Amino acid sequence: MTETLDTAPSLAVGDDVADLLFRNARTTMRWTDAEVTDAQIQQAWDLAKFGPTAMNTQPLRLLVVRSAEAKARLVAHMADGNKPKVEAAPVSLVLAHDPAFHEHLPTLFPVYPDIKEQLAPAADVREQMARTNALLQAGYLILALRAVGLAAGPMNGMDFDGVDAEFFSGSGFRSFLVVNAGVADGEGTPFPRLPRLALDQVAEIL
Amino acid sequence: MTETLDTAPSLAVGDDVADLLFRNARTTMRWTDAEVTDAQIQQAWDLAKFGPTAMNTQPLRLLVVRSAEAKARLVAHMADGNKPKVEAAPVSLVLAHDPAFHEHLPTLFPVYPDIKEQLAPAADVREQMARTNALLQAGYLILALRAVGLAAGPMNGMDFDGVDAEFFSGSGFRSFLVVNAGVADGEGTPFPRLPRLALDQVAEIL
Repeated sequence: MTETLDTAPSLAVGDDVADLLFRNARTTMRWTDAEVTDAQIQQAWDLAKFGPTAMNTQPLRLLVVRSAEAKARLVAHMADGNKPKVEAAPVSLVLAHDPAFHEHLPTLFPVYPDIKEQLAPAADVREQMARTNALLQAGYLILALRAVGLAAGPMNGMDFDGVDAEFFSGSGFRSFLVVNAGVADGEGTPFPRLPRLALDQVAEIL
Repeated sequence: MTETLDTAPSLAVGDDVADLLFRNARTTMRWTDAEVTDAQIQQAWDLAKFGPTAMNTQPLRLLVVRSAEAKARLVAHMADGNKPKVEAAPVSLVLAHDPAFHEHLPTLFPVYPDIKEQLAPAADVREQMARTNALLQAGYLILALRAVGLAAGPMNGMDFDGVDAEFFSGSGFRSFLVVNAGVADGEGTPFPRLPRLALDQVAEIL
């Protein structure tokens, strides 16, 4: 680090936005009674969908679990500590990847007209590409939910195979994360912020 | 979808922010001469680091490749189509995950005092956790770069094993993405925006 922070220009977003999306946002488990509407899910998707993916594959799929019946089906497959979190959340989003994303590529990535046929027999490659890029999209979606005014509570303590058998036996989608969403009650969590690694702990500059 | 868009409240961020971070942001390959300073990298990290990871693991590691010598070492392992993109970018960030993230957990996640020892023998579990959570962090970082006023050009056409042998033989980090960064020249790309999947193509609401 050869330069000091005071050489940095201002952020391109206001401090209020930096706080909302990053600095003050917490993994939330305490919610107000405010419902999460279909329109808010639409708004979040209409931001998150623009995040980049390899060859524009967009393999992320969502199951929006809001009804009491669907909640009960999901809760059955959550780790014990996460069951009450799903029950308490206004909505729980099951995030999954679609190994058959290549079916959409003639539309999504016309740059390579043969890519659908090339990927069709390569199930292992598709699985890896789908998971990798859906995880990137999950990062975009968590921040998009916050941009819509919702808090996010991501969790991965669950029986993914059980969730897939419950909800995705027809589609072949593979779940990898559940993100609770709603309006946070206060800070959204009783726990203090845990420490973060400093840049010099994670980065080398060459 | 039982509700219409006009029932949605406003976004929690301005349209200018939604455009900057999501709607108008493009995978960039055309750059101005503006340098990317250490201070800007620090600013981006100081936003991205707050994004949630499982058990606060934060397994993402960064190699900031800016010097001509380091660029040449990286270019040697990029796919041919991506070599000129690395050469043209003000800075190229090699994103990697650290399978030894558990060494930090006594500090990062004191909630489970024994978690470091429990994970130590479970190399496969650590590898999977590291990759999964570093990919989420990559999503946060791409948006954080934009929040700092930089454009991002993520690429994964490269010889990851070659990059790891070149740069990470001592650390054991495993690369999974290169993100070019800098100030976009105009739109940053000569290509029109590719289509995105609509919510009803990716989501079901229960």
